[in-house]
Amino acid sequence: MTDTDAQYGTDDGTRITDEVIASFAGAKDERFRELMRSLVRHTHAFVRETGLTEREWHEAIAFLRACGDITTDTRQEFILLSDVLGISMQTIAVNHPTRANATESTVFGPFFVDDAPRIDCGGDMSGGAVGEPCWVEGTVTDVDGRPVPDARIDVWEADADGKYDVQYDDGRLAGRAHLFTDSEGRYAFWGLTPTPYPIPHDGPVGALLAAADRSPMRASHLHFMVAAPGFRRLVTHIFVDGDEYLGRDSVFGVKPSLVTEFARRDSGDATPDGRVVDGTWTRARFDIVLMPESY
Amino acid sequence: MTDTDAQYGTDDGTRITDEVIASFAGAKDERFRELMRSLVRHTHAFVRETGLTEREWHEAIAFLRACGDITTDTRQEFILLSDVLGISMQTIAVNHPTRANATESTVFGPFFVDDAPRIDCGGDMSGGAVGEPCWVEGTVTDVDGRPVPDARIDVWEADADGKYDVQYDDGRLAGRAHLFTDSEGRYAFWGLTPTPYPIPHDGPVGALLAAADRSPMRASHLHFMVAAPGFRRLVTHIFVDGDEYLGRDSVFGVKPSLVTEFARRDSGDATPDGRVVDGTWTRARFDIVLMPESY
Ligand SMILES: [Fe+2]
Ligand SMILES: [Fe+2]
Repeated sequence: MTDTDAQYGTDDGTRITDEVIASFAGAKDERFRELMRSLVRHTHAFVRETGLTEREWHEAIAFLRACGDITTDTRQEFILLSDVLGISMQTIAVNHPTRANATESTVFGPFFVDDAPRIDCGGDMSGGAVGEPCWVEGTVTDVDGRPVPDARIDVWEADADGKYDVQYDDGRLAGRAHLFTDSEGRYAFWGLTPTPYPIPHDGPVGALLAAADRSPMRASHLHFMVAAPGFRRLVTHIFVDGDEYLGRDSVFGVKPSLVTEFARRDSGDATPDGRVVDGTWTRARFDIVLMPESY
Repeated sequence: MTDTDAQYGTDDGTRITDEVIASFAGAKDERFRELMRSLVRHTHAFVRETGLTEREWHEAIAFLRACGDITTDTRQEFILLSDVLGISMQTIAVNHPTRANATESTVFGPFFVDDAPRIDCGGDMSGGAVGEPCWVEGTVTDVDGRPVPDARIDVWEADADGKYDVQYDDGRLAGRAHLFTDSEGRYAFWGLTPTPYPIPHDGPVGALLAAADRSPMRASHLHFMVAAPGFRRLVTHIFVDGDEYLGRDSVFGVKPSLVTEFARRDSGDATPDGRVVDGTWTRARFDIVLMPESY
């Protein structure tokens, strides 16, 4: 808090802070004490540093209440808040530091569903969702380039209207699946060319974005979660090279290493598996490198 | 953030933070930009400093959601959270620095009600609430000791069962009133000797207090709000000298200058106004000094 102390310089500027920190001394769990100490120091420093007015304090309380009011099992406003303030990505950065040549992580997002259907390698995960077909292929290896067979890959994405299946009221299951790498660590599937979509922005977080003149749009992406015994679970996306929102993703999820070429093909171009596509389609390659469990 | 950078020392430890701060550059309101910049810096530093795990992040999100779930117009869990973390008192310290001999401020609390009944000087504000009678008297002056006539004084307090009128389901109005100082700045009223009471602790904030092995009890107090033209509005309490919770008030509201002697009297002792009291009563004096509006 050196910066803050210097700025406010009063003898008792941190008296209340010290008193509150001391009140957690009796907590049995040491990690809880550590978290509370840091939380109290930073929230109090925020108040002192900004000279937070009582009116602003009331507005902050009302904002949090509004977040609570709009939250349901399928609308998690506090996650959105964490996302648009970059707190989610900061947490990911702390927990998944980039090491060596391992594939980078990004946000999990609120649209994952357990028990998505299994498809075979080369199968179609779109489940009838509207959009341009896209062939995605690649390998899963360790940091030394050795193939990882039988790695579980979960993939999920929005349709061309910018919505995940769970955002429709009809209980549809589409745009999500899981598959496994083959004995040489290879995988491939048909999905949809990712398109941009807005995060839900009709609530308090949307109002915050509007006040900041920020767009709610996410850069086009396809979600991956990859797991294999002995490796750290990887949660990431691939982004579409050339996408207009790459530089202003509303949740700060873009990392250059995850931007991928989705090469556009014409109707007549031969597909990898002989499928006949009526219209354009795209083709992307994403080679995944997993970190060992204990790095 | 010097402390944090030193601790984590990576080149890009604050890359995400910088990116998020930059995203607010387009906000039209300068104060909003300033608040967001500080909020982002401190929340991100909290994550880096603690090495917040993804599990802990999920628990924090669930905690905020639980606060939202229990909140109603009469149960403000986010205010309680701010109170038990001392954020409320820190905000008051920033907005009401102690100057000269002016009376100190403390928390407003969630139990104030507009339009409490008016009583005359010497009247009874208890409205039939149970408890030991208490005579409170004093003056309102400016910092130079000049009386402030016609100052409006709102007073409110819990009954001897530790509850404010609004915490009962029967719509009662008790333990609150307003009155005005006389031409010499004097006031007096009958109320109840304050007793300790717990803040609502059957929700997530109660669970947080339990994890910290902290009591939800507030030190016994009587609320004051004092307003007069040309002076800063004063929101404060008087606390009971000798109260067992003075050193561990759950919301950190106690200031030594606000601790007041409530002298106990017997049934037969003469009251200031000739009232006959059946049982013990107490007597307290609280001389209030208001700051000028512009100090
Ligand atoms: Fe997504
Ligand atoms: Fe109170």
